[in-house]
Amino acid sequence: MCNACLIENVKSSMLSRRALFTGAAAVTAASVASGLISARPALAQATGKVVDLTHTYDSDFPTFDGKPGILFDVDKTFAADGYNLFKLTIFEHTGTHIDTPLHFSDGGTSVDALPVENLVCPLCIIDITAKAADDANATVEAEDIEAWISANGEIPAGACVAMHSGWAAKVGDTTFRGTADGALAFPGFGKSATDLLMETGAASIGVDTMSLDPGNSADFAVHYSWLPSGRFGIEGLANLDQLPATGATVFIGAPKHRGGTGGPARVMAML
Amino acid sequence: MCNACLIENVKSSMLSRRALFTGAAAVTAASVASGLISARPALAQATGKVVDLTHTYDSDFPTFDGKPGILFDVDKTFAADGYNLFKLTIFEHTGTHIDTPLHFSDGGTSVDALPVENLVCPLCIIDITAKAADDANATVEAEDIEAWISANGEIPAGACVAMHSGWAAKVGDTTFRGTADGALAFPGFGKSATDLLMETGAASIGVDTMSLDPGNSADFAVHYSWLPSGRFGIEGLANLDQLPATGATVFIGAPKHRGGTGGPARVMAML
Repeated sequence: MCNACLIENVKSSMLSRRALFTGAAAVTAASVASGLISARPALAQATGKVVDLTHTYDSDFPTFDGKPGILFDVDKTFAADGYNLFKLTIFEHTGTHIDTPLHFSDGGTSVDALPVENLVCPLCIIDITAKAADDANATVEAEDIEAWISANGEIPAGACVAMHSGWAAKVGDTTFRGTADGALAFPGFGKSATDLLMETGAASIGVDTMSLDPGNSADFAVHYSWLPSGRFGIEGLANLDQLPATGATVFIGAPKHRGGTGGPARVMAML
Repeated sequence: MCNACLIENVKSSMLSRRALFTGAAAVTAASVASGLISARPALAQATGKVVDLTHTYDSDFPTFDGKPGILFDVDKTFAADGYNLFKLTIFEHTGTHIDTPLHFSDGGTSVDALPVENLVCPLCIIDITAKAADDANATVEAEDIEAWISANGEIPAGACVAMHSGWAAKVGDTTFRGTADGALAFPGFGKSATDLLMETGAASIGVDTMSLDPGNSADFAVHYSWLPSGRFGIEGLANLDQLPATGATVFIGAPKHRGGTGGPARVMAML
């Protein structure tokens, strides 16, 4: 998703971002991480309806670099061995999957060490389907977060804030990745939005596209600021159109291989 | 976990088991599968406490055949590429993982097709730590299920019924797999228990050991009856000692690779 030469370019933006991370926000984030604040108030009113936010994936599932993200080798068969089993080759960042702090930093939190309190949390959905219909590289910006807060209240402590761009419906089509001439083109978060979210208790962001940054990003500014801050992301979410802007609880079934930078996850929401 | 020659031996037991699957139980199971019955009544009283039932796993995590269940290859590094990413080789049935109907049948339900309604469900825990302390190959039997029902009420529709043998605490020790002379030895379900559970609305079973059947099983009778019946299992659960016998809701984050026979899962419970 990037080149090494980009690293220096984003260091200054990371520093300026840190100035925005106020003391009050730091206290909130610390409280969430310690589990002192319940991040799941909506469950008390749960109806029991479950919505699967995970795409089924295989070797044809679209990936950022265009190569297969998973390969299947038959290891055992029912006919010959009495049971079926596949040997899988998985590039961590494929399908509906987690981006950890370690993915875009040296020594950041790995996927097995994500706080479990942040894996069951309120889900806030930012709908940008209208502008994404006009611009394939549309972004969630600070004003979209402010509008959501005006309509729905503060972002809850520990929340996952997800972009709903309408892109999940394109997953079987080449337009999920980009344009006919091969350029990457899909919506993502703008840094103004994630900088603002760092002043809230949000613990993670999610997108229904292949990347936290938009397809035409030149600097991966969200990857290089949000992830190194100790927060995580989810890419490739499905079915966000089946949920309200607020009120759902999301279960983020991150994989738990030791030291992983992320990986395919099972994500489900409950109303 | 078996040899092809076992298949014929267990067909008769599968047939006799089918006779136990009464019409009433079939109606219950069909209702759960269609989502008509809410399987999550306990969430309305949720306290918000989350317990992670998943082991962190790596190449040293104990496996049934003794070979590494996951291998890590460095694919990208932050220093050279600007981000970190691993290429993983995963044998599906390693770590805390799902056994699907397809694992032990031809044409059974694959891991991507498990009904989402059965992935968020009530968790019933059968504690056999006392007899497992005396016998490494102790089993959950029908009378253990009956005793649980007498103490806690009926098995709820869609439930996951998990064996707590105390084995999760041994995961870093060779005794997790077996005896000093190399024989497999660990607790599991007995077929009398799973046959009885098929008369309830239970959709899945779970164990805190490497296999649904005990280590000394000669015929994998539970694998060859429970899984082909369309139900699934979870092997390698952690932290069941932190939960009550009833009242928790479990989120079974099964992987969703197309046509998979199972695979590493993130499993969390909420009180």
